[in-house]
Amino acid sequence: MKVYLAGPDVFLSDAADIGRRKKEICARHGLVGLFPLDDAIGGDAGPNPDGGAPMSLQIFLRCIAMMKTADAVIANLTPFRGASADAGTVYELGFMAARGKVCAGYTNVPGSYIGRVDAAAKARDGRQIRVDRDGNEVEDFGLADNLMIVHALDTFGHPILTPETAPADRWRDLAVFEKCVRWIAGRRIVGSTP
Amino acid sequence: MKVYLAGPDVFLSDAADIGRRKKEICARHGLVGLFPLDDAIGGDAGPNPDGGAPMSLQIFLRCIAMMKTADAVIANLTPFRGASADAGTVYELGFMAARGKVCAGYTNVPGSYIGRVDAAAKARDGRQIRVDRDGNEVEDFGLADNLMIVHALDTFGHPILTPETAPADRWRDLAVFEKCVRWIAGRRIVGSTP
Repeated sequence: MKVYLAGPDVFLSDAADIGRRKKEICARHGLVGLFPLDDAIGGDAGPNPDGGAPMSLQIFLRCIAMMKTADAVIANLTPFRGASADAGTVYELGFMAARGKVCAGYTNVPGSYIGRVDAAAKARDGRQIRVDRDGNEVEDFGLADNLMIVHALDTFGHPILTPETAPADRWRDLAVFEKCVRWIAGRRIVGSTP
Repeated sequence: MKVYLAGPDVFLSDAADIGRRKKEICARHGLVGLFPLDDAIGGDAGPNPDGGAPMSLQIFLRCIAMMKTADAVIANLTPFRGASADAGTVYELGFMAARGKVCAGYTNVPGSYIGRVDAAAKARDGRQIRVDRDGNEVEDFGLADNLMIVHALDTFGHPILTPETAPADRWRDLAVFEKCVRWIAGRRIVGSTP
């Protein structure tokens, strides 16, 4: 069973090492992890180094091709440069959910979305709401992130997994990631594979 | 032809009015706009007010059902609470792209993603890169947002549309939105409908 390993891990200084560790954990549970940097395009990261498709488009197409071959996704939804998960990862979660793949995901930051947004209380239409600095409502459901992300996992796989306490290194601790792997691996054994 | 109107517009203080305006623009071009707040669940926004499914799950399921009936999506990708588009909108873009729907989108903020991230120059593996405050690489392709978003639009519909200069109200100016509508409407006439 192939598992696409979505996440901003690709932006880490030791991205290749994280990818290797994630794939080792998958292998230990009988799964094949597909990391976006596998078969990475060589050369410079600048636009269009070889006169063909721009580098960014090549990366996109490689990720799409990997997702199509995968049976499941594990999304690293740790908040990235703000209150929500990495945009690319969230796109991929939507893509995999829509294709009926098994969806799992985790965040290494405990707590709810609204706790991470600088929000003020305000009365609107007779109810108390929270608004951001632009005056836009901040959703207040006590969820770990935007409801589309959280309920995608509930609906198309396993509810989002979080650590009880924040790990020392949110970008490199793979304990909760391994819980996702274990769940997918168990599901494979229990499920009826055609 | 039905168009799902994805975006953080639902969080605006005048969300219902924005939805009405967007649907009117669609109608003027012969399209039916589906706004996530259509058929909104009444009552308080708190969790589980009626003992049934939690409110947030009801919203999720309504959005999924709407997306399934739509032929196309227009995503409002204006940066939301950070450098990237709203996470829920990005999820929906991935969902629609994966289902083969026509994808269009716009941002009312001109400029590139990297220009919005607080990034410093750094040498890594013999090349000059930009890193954020966590030391994670910031993708530097001169694109308007994360490459998955930008190339999803290139690949599955129309390239992202942006204004030449920032409009006075990035949350309520619908000029670029209307360009997306016009493109989808024109495509409908040209295309071969089965």
